Amino acid sequence: MPKAETELFFIGMGLSGLNSCTLETLDILEKMDKVFVEQYTNFIPEEIPPLLKHIRPEISILTRKDLENNDQLFLENIKGKSSAILIPGDPFVATTHNSLRLAAIQRGFTCRIVHNASIISAAASVSGLSSYRFGRTVTCPFPHNASEFPYEIIKLNKQIGAHTLVLLDIELSTGEFLTVNEAISILLELEEKRKEKIFTKPDLVVGLAQIGTKNEAISAGAAEEVMTLAWRKIGPPQALIACAKSLHFTEEETLKTLWKVRLSNQRVDK
Amino acid sequence: MPKAETELFFIGMGLSGLNSCTLETLDILEKMDKVFVEQYTNFIPEEIPPLLKHIRPEISILTRKDLENNDQLFLENIKGKSSAILIPGDPFVATTHNSLRLAAIQRGFTCRIVHNASIISAAASVSGLSSYRFGRTVTCPFPHNASEFPYEIIKLNKQIGAHTLVLLDIELSTGEFLTVNEAISILLELEEKRKEKIFTKPDLVVGLAQIGTKNEAISAGAAEEVMTLAWRKIGPPQALIACAKSLHFTEEETLKTLWKVRLSNQRVDK
Repeated sequence: MPKAETELFFIGMGLSGLNSCTLETLDILEKMDKVFVEQYTNFIPEEIPPLLKHIRPEISILTRKDLENNDQLFLENIKGKSSAILIPGDPFVATTHNSLRLAAIQRGFTCRIVHNASIISAAASVSGLSSYRFGRTVTCPFPHNASEFPYEIIKLNKQIGAHTLVLLDIELSTGEFLTVNEAISILLELEEKRKEKIFTKPDLVVGLAQIGTKNEAISAGAAEEVMTLAWRKIGPPQALIACAKSLHFTEEETLKTLWKVRLSNQRVDK
Repeated sequence: MPKAETELFFIGMGLSGLNSCTLETLDILEKMDKVFVEQYTNFIPEEIPPLLKHIRPEISILTRKDLENNDQLFLENIKGKSSAILIPGDPFVATTHNSLRLAAIQRGFTCRIVHNASIISAAASVSGLSSYRFGRTVTCPFPHNASEFPYEIIKLNKQIGAHTLVLLDIELSTGEFLTVNEAISILLELEEKRKEKIFTKPDLVVGLAQIGTKNEAISAGAAEEVMTLAWRKIGPPQALIACAKSLHFTEEETLKTLWKVRLSNQRVDK
């Protein structure tokens, strides 16, 4: 007899793969009929940590093909069971998994979430900038998908005194990723075209790579300085913070202490 | 002989106390000379999960008094050792611990961060609204500290088409907390005073309580509907999302599916 209820857990893995799963996740996975790991929205280390391996020696890998366009088949196969999908970061911060959640609810499944660290909050936290002063987040696409949208969002955020987190595109099927240098170049080119003084060479930025992992790299300073570093060597995923025109004085103190930033072009609010 | 290097880990506990610590946290705590848990920026269940208790039968509690004004004494006492402080949410999303980080760095300590879920990203994720469309976050203070700042931030965010996450104040020493109903009342009173149509009774809001815990409660709808629910019974911490004037069509679909919202006052972008 199948169980009356179908349970589907969307479990965030945080920023460093299965190692950043939470303790409560172990308790949940122990009770599941099926456990999947989603491996197409981010790069995940392949190793299963010993505590998790002890509970779940086998975890099925979900590819993009398994879900996109095939979500009804996937849901049919887990009907009447308790299943969990492990997802990089926080489950619904990226929009990719939301349609699966909706399709599952429409079938009467009970969906549950386990939250975890996301670059959205970690970027602010690690940078020393105030989380409260971030505006809308935007993704910067590869040059072949060029768009003025990142420039537009930085402009809107600057209008309300907000920093902008710019996530840099990755393409997992090929291993391609956009670097901090490339993103700065793209934005400077847009500035060249639009000439609205939204993103210029002396503007303060924070470059971020592999946040929450052992290879984490961070550098803050003028855009023209930060873009001279060897970001490609560090690897994906990378992100860029375009700072607001003015900093709070505690942000100024923190950036100076953490990243030895010289602030020449930045107003400071008391 | 004390160790040459002083290490201080700031470890996020996520949203449900020690149970939402990450697996890598266990490996770190095993190697520490001293482990502290910070119990003054949020409510934490007192129980230590078995896996953690096995490694660390005793964890010292840090009160506000131990750190604020006494951070130099605290740092002196952990000099030459490896220590970790467990902190609710993500370590530096709230600004409280940043000054300790700076003081530690100024003493030459090596500071490390372990990220975890924060209400900043979890609120968007659980609500079904797009994380990318959130603007600046703001805290709504108790009525005795009344301020127009939350109204002002909602106004700024609406100008750029962004949702606003409004965190509701808590006072741990007394157990006091602001509820979703009270926050809506405060904002409607500010509307009454300012009359700028920034926060009105039919406007779409999402009320959130105890997100990431077993008692999690969420309700979305017109402000005047959401404020009729018995939020005080659910307990702290609580938060409110004041939605942008228009929703993306995927946000509309998600809100209808998840929370049965009828959208009468909201534009939808295709």
